[in-house]
Amino acid sequence: MRTDKCIPDLTTALREAGVRDGMTLSFHHHLRNGDFVANMALDALAALGVKDVTVALSSVFPVHEPLVGHMQSGLVRTLDTNYVSGQVAKAISLGVPAQPVMFRSHGGRPRAIGEGSLKIDIACVAAPCVDGLGNINGAQGPSACGSLGYILPDVEHAAKVIAITDCVSEKPLKSISIPHNRVDYVVKVDRIGDPAGIVSGSINLTRDPVAHAIARNAQAVIRASGLLRDGFNYQTGAGGASLAASQYLREDMRRLGLHGGFLLGGITSYMVDMLHEELFDAIFDVQCFDLHSVRSIAEHAAHHEISADSYANPRQKSCYVDFLDAALLGASEVDVNFNVNVHTDSNGMLIGGSGGHNDAAAGAKMTIIVAPLARARLPIVVERCTTITTPGKNVDVLVTERGIAVNPSQAELIARLKEARLPLYSIEDLRAMALNMTGTPKQLSVSDKLVGIVEYRDGSIIDSIYAPA
Amino acid sequence: MRTDKCIPDLTTALREAGVRDGMTLSFHHHLRNGDFVANMALDALAALGVKDVTVALSSVFPVHEPLVGHMQSGLVRTLDTNYVSGQVAKAISLGVPAQPVMFRSHGGRPRAIGEGSLKIDIACVAAPCVDGLGNINGAQGPSACGSLGYILPDVEHAAKVIAITDCVSEKPLKSISIPHNRVDYVVKVDRIGDPAGIVSGSINLTRDPVAHAIARNAQAVIRASGLLRDGFNYQTGAGGASLAASQYLREDMRRLGLHGGFLLGGITSYMVDMLHEELFDAIFDVQCFDLHSVRSIAEHAAHHEISADSYANPRQKSCYVDFLDAALLGASEVDVNFNVNVHTDSNGMLIGGSGGHNDAAAGAKMTIIVAPLARARLPIVVERCTTITTPGKNVDVLVTERGIAVNPSQAELIARLKEARLPLYSIEDLRAMALNMTGTPKQLSVSDKLVGIVEYRDGSIIDSIYAPA
Repeated sequence: MRTDKCIPDLTTALREAGVRDGMTLSFHHHLRNGDFVANMALDALAALGVKDVTVALSSVFPVHEPLVGHMQSGLVRTLDTNYVSGQVAKAISLGVPAQPVMFRSHGGRPRAIGEGSLKIDIACVAAPCVDGLGNINGAQGPSACGSLGYILPDVEHAAKVIAITDCVSEKPLKSISIPHNRVDYVVKVDRIGDPAGIVSGSINLTRDPVAHAIARNAQAVIRASGLLRDGFNYQTGAGGASLAASQYLREDMRRLGLHGGFLLGGITSYMVDMLHEELFDAIFDVQCFDLHSVRSIAEHAAHHEISADSYANPRQKSCYVDFLDAALLGASEVDVNFNVNVHTDSNGMLIGGSGGHNDAAAGAKMTIIVAPLARARLPIVVERCTTITTPGKNVDVLVTERGIAVNPSQAELIARLKEARLPLYSIEDLRAMALNMTGTPKQLSVSDKLVGIVEYRDGSIIDSIYAPA
Repeated sequence: MRTDKCIPDLTTALREAGVRDGMTLSFHHHLRNGDFVANMALDALAALGVKDVTVALSSVFPVHEPLVGHMQSGLVRTLDTNYVSGQVAKAISLGVPAQPVMFRSHGGRPRAIGEGSLKIDIACVAAPCVDGLGNINGAQGPSACGSLGYILPDVEHAAKVIAITDCVSEKPLKSISIPHNRVDYVVKVDRIGDPAGIVSGSINLTRDPVAHAIARNAQAVIRASGLLRDGFNYQTGAGGASLAASQYLREDMRRLGLHGGFLLGGITSYMVDMLHEELFDAIFDVQCFDLHSVRSIAEHAAHHEISADSYANPRQKSCYVDFLDAALLGASEVDVNFNVNVHTDSNGMLIGGSGGHNDAAAGAKMTIIVAPLARARLPIVVERCTTITTPGKNVDVLVTERGIAVNPSQAELIARLKEARLPLYSIEDLRAMALNMTGTPKQLSVSDKLVGIVEYRDGSIIDSIYAPA
């Protein structure tokens, strides 16, 4: 029986949780670039003199730059993550960690946790609100971030769970994301994050004409595909073209009088508006991308928090991605076999990771990749991806500002798009157009220093990442 | 990827789930005496010619009488359950099952499931509403029963999960009790139960003056104990004296202007009214005892469904019972060491089981047993309980219509009750009063036929039950 879980500070909590050299500590990224918790915990570990830990942080943002120093000092041996950005991404590319980083997908991570290949010793929850029993939610408190979906598998399987919070509620919580029976310790701190940082990356509607041209083409594909009908289930990312495409989808649904099923994944205000307008029945939310979504998940009964397990874990009895009609996803490169890279740029530097990319692609009836033909004078359509995140067999369409290429395996879709008179090209044609814009870039040369292992959602190794030469 | 889980009938679903002789199938009792599902599944097993199964049904009601025939035929080898009543209870007492029945508590069952000592091959969910993905809730549909708390640990650990439903929703569910990723098969049947049967047992307010005398004494104990203050957390059963005591509690809280924390356990309309009246902040509901509660859990945001794990599993990091200030529980016998029996009557016949009895008693700061001194001309206060359900060390007070006995270990409570001038007696005095009413009953004689094993919530064996001689 353990009814008072409050511990005065994080150092004490980590010590009581039995932290030791070589352990794996897990963190989640719902506070995105506003997260203070991972840095705080690493400072506490440094104070305790712990070494050689694996940091399993679901996504890494620029705010996590102090990780670079902790990797250099030997406190952090490596990361286990689904996405990296900022200085940490650069440091990994350059081989700073003592051990190559394990890159997973948002569905692969809970699979690994569930099967025990990613064994978590201590899960640290950035907990926006905790009640006297230790129940946690993400919907209340000054640092509310909405869904806590990515940390739910961790707290189910971790040996110890520490909730770090800046809001202890006297009263029982209005909703419960993590029940008290999963929580060992509660630490109250001044602030767990900066809510302004939850909104990070490009989640405002772009005016970029290239993005809008892509978005119009993408929505034309959805319209022509035959999948856009009552009950349509949809996921898209938060990139410029993806967000713009949501606006065109909304207009189509209004005009056609359609009523969709669910919206899935990381959620933006554009999706929330479609729910509130009753264009869709439900949102299944594994992460809120903005504060409008945070408010909605707290208030709207049809806006549901879901766990990463139910979102995308391929070893569950089903996952939400399996029910998608269409997924609209980005790319840093697409190759002529429709393989997609969202891990590295064409210079071989890390700039992201799968997130839910290869999960949604595997599940959706139709996976559309939206990308410009070229970026920063480098072609996006390439001969062979620098890194493979998502295998071409799960990619159905590439949509660019100039034209659309359909995977030759999708004969029926090709016929439908032809009938709709969409600007279809072979992917080799799009490759040629891109090269025409950029010239032939010089061949990337890599060193023999392995810096990252790319695990596909099912646990197989799909690629490896080497430091640039 | 498995997106269509619909199976035409239960026999096919059981066959697809790989049912074999000797397996353990689990069921839950939220439809109480209105449950059709367990009988339906057993008929399907009979049709398949399966033998020797263990039926892990969380509680057994009179409606489950067909189990007797299935035990006689050899289809059912034994039960694993927390409570029995009706003809099945009688059959177990008389030794019909081939193997003694394992009696657990509502917290002990999820403990056993979690640790693997109760290994469930196939969990059968009586699912009031299922959507196209396989998400389940108990709040919607013609057979809505509210909370599905007792089956949640089963679906988390069972190899296969079959949802049996009479309501498939085209639209995503309004709330999700069991996410689709835990569900293998969905079988649509005409009716899973009779909602009228959910209300079973004595959940209407009694006019019995003895029950009211007990209830007044019990509430006087709570009032005098010092525990009744803002934030008071409370659980009680659905027996006549317990329900009457809730009314006296309500009056006290109104009069004293108190604001409670949470109400816990099996929930009746009397508790719901206190929530809606804002006398309490929240209800944590592992089971709805009546249709008023069923409506409330669907509509009231502070009326939460909880799992049996978070309710009472002693191996979790905490459980709700640990936070109780007071628990008011019944008894078929209380002995002079404050041990309590709710399994058998004084003739040695099975009439119930722990349910959450020994869980709540272990967790609550103060456990009050409410019982009349005698029933059917048999004393309730006895020298030694026929069966021990709850050990005396976790029982603080016995309240009868004639007087109150406090466990001598509770010196502070004795002082408080004395100060409040409550009618305190030693438990031996109450025993003498009871004997004075009934005369000395003849000694129970039992056979050497073991019919039940009583497991305490922590997994230790606290008692054994033998057939009467």
